[in-house]
Amino acid sequence: MTVNRQWLLARRPQGMVTEENFEYRESPVPEPGKGQVLVRNLYLSFDPTQRGWMEDRESYMPPVGIGEPMRAGSVAQVVASNHPGYAAGDLVQTLGGWQDYLVVDGSAGGIGLSRLPPGVTPQMALGVLGTTGQTAYFGMLDLGQPESGQTVLVSGAAGATGSVAGQIARIKGCRVIGIAGGPDKCRWLKEEARFDDVIDYKSENVDSRIGELCPDRVDVFFDNVGGDILEAALNHINLRARIVLCGGISGYNATEPQPGPTNLMNLVVMRARMEGFIVIDYVDRFAEGAAALAGWMQSGELVHRDDVQEGFENIPATLNRLFTGQNIGKQMLKIAEPS
Amino acid sequence: MTVNRQWLLARRPQGMVTEENFEYRESPVPEPGKGQVLVRNLYLSFDPTQRGWMEDRESYMPPVGIGEPMRAGSVAQVVASNHPGYAAGDLVQTLGGWQDYLVVDGSAGGIGLSRLPPGVTPQMALGVLGTTGQTAYFGMLDLGQPESGQTVLVSGAAGATGSVAGQIARIKGCRVIGIAGGPDKCRWLKEEARFDDVIDYKSENVDSRIGELCPDRVDVFFDNVGGDILEAALNHINLRARIVLCGGISGYNATEPQPGPTNLMNLVVMRARMEGFIVIDYVDRFAEGAAALAGWMQSGELVHRDDVQEGFENIPATLNRLFTGQNIGKQMLKIAEPS
Repeated sequence: MTVNRQWLLARRPQGMVTEENFEYRESPVPEPGKGQVLVRNLYLSFDPTQRGWMEDRESYMPPVGIGEPMRAGSVAQVVASNHPGYAAGDLVQTLGGWQDYLVVDGSAGGIGLSRLPPGVTPQMALGVLGTTGQTAYFGMLDLGQPESGQTVLVSGAAGATGSVAGQIARIKGCRVIGIAGGPDKCRWLKEEARFDDVIDYKSENVDSRIGELCPDRVDVFFDNVGGDILEAALNHINLRARIVLCGGISGYNATEPQPGPTNLMNLVVMRARMEGFIVIDYVDRFAEGAAALAGWMQSGELVHRDDVQEGFENIPATLNRLFTGQNIGKQMLKIAEPS
Repeated sequence: MTVNRQWLLARRPQGMVTEENFEYRESPVPEPGKGQVLVRNLYLSFDPTQRGWMEDRESYMPPVGIGEPMRAGSVAQVVASNHPGYAAGDLVQTLGGWQDYLVVDGSAGGIGLSRLPPGVTPQMALGVLGTTGQTAYFGMLDLGQPESGQTVLVSGAAGATGSVAGQIARIKGCRVIGIAGGPDKCRWLKEEARFDDVIDYKSENVDSRIGELCPDRVDVFFDNVGGDILEAALNHINLRARIVLCGGISGYNATEPQPGPTNLMNLVVMRARMEGFIVIDYVDRFAEGAAALAGWMQSGELVHRDDVQEGFENIPATLNRLFTGQNIGKQMLKIAEPS
């Protein structure tokens, strides 16, 4: 353990990310300074929002700099600590990036550095109890405000966030329709995640299928996709509908600005609301979210899938699985098991 | 008074409305039945939303039928009443349509039939104290939620609703920037309505001017226009901004679906909200709105302009003044004075 393997951002992408955008480097393992903690990444999280971090534009976080390790959430293990709050062997969550080792300020807190609660595995911490599940929890409940008996539509429904968001709405007594790509994902959503119905956007007309499956129209649309699917959903919103803008993966790799929906005026006609959010605003309430999600997992009301790749050399290619729809559930990559 | 002049909807428009869309007819004056009231229209209201009523599509009100009088808000005077709540000579507000006479159910209430409060002139009732001013009041305050010191941007700012919405934000202690077309409107907004600054979309780059005039970004965008102006505003929204979708006049006469803004994902990055509304949902609170608006008029904090056309034969052409930007303030047409 004298070498720190790293994947650095080498060139900003035009369109889909390729391995050309990254550069492999081996560096010395950094030394923790005063108050710092040296950690070793065990599991990396892959999230659509990482594509945005690669762009040179203002956003909710600064862009990853050229020559810096690619930013990524991770579960890591403390190797050495100069901070009283952490000891070697502790499992933590951090923004570890695409590398083996990093030093973190021991008082960073929140998404910067926090200990895994007892009994929480690295996979759970990155997935259903991590930012992915928290995004579903706060997006659906705080913004979507689903009420029992209402109709909830979720795009990217087989994804890590969408699948949890839809199940939360089902737990709250809603009729839940998912939109996903391909028969395997659709089958899983109906049979395992117990969505009321599913639309396969690869083989069905999304607009007309929403109309058929949502005769009382759509009260909450939890959108991870944007583009044509957002436009189709807007055609079927109910009075006072809430559109939760979680993401817009359909546009993340576009090289030209993508036109928005032609039917935004339906928000006026239906007195509806479209609202965006970023889960890091809810860090102070993550304990509440994790407790609720863990409870539903234990009672069997909430199921979850992880897609765990392996191999440090496969890190760049794994990111693209999100954009090609190859991932089944939460995309992560295991670098090492806890020691 | 034995003839009821009417302008009927004859053909649904493609693009801009022309006189071809209407047909002039003279009918007998209707007789009020049991519980009904016969009224004579004095002033007609012209509103961008009337363009939507002419389309054969689902909306917040049914389309005007072919062969029916064109729907329009009006101030009218009771000619004969079979309802104990009204007597000949009473001034009322109703959806009188483009005609001299109509019968209304005396118990209709709300926008169907209501008495003008004492001291309120027909012009005030159709404009600043009517649905136009109420739209500004509830849209700005309930949806926009402006806070003292925040920056508020208003499109269609010289229009009847926009000018009131901006002034309400100024009264609430906000810095207010208007977007309007042409030097006359811009001068009126700065000098009379006391907007902090104005952007002339006919001669200035709206996107860059918003950036210059809103260095702290935009907390509330009250939008009457949509299209490119909405996209420009979205480039400059602040964290947790509220976009009040009041209308989208830029698209009302389009013959093809108009693409929406390419930058909707800014709602996510800025955790912002875009919300539509229809003022008729606030009918129960109109007394509150009228009292506040009347108070600000009396204290001089709120100014208002009416654009009063005359002549029954000029009714169809007057509607287009809204879409060519010819109107200066609230567009109305006087058919007759109260007797």
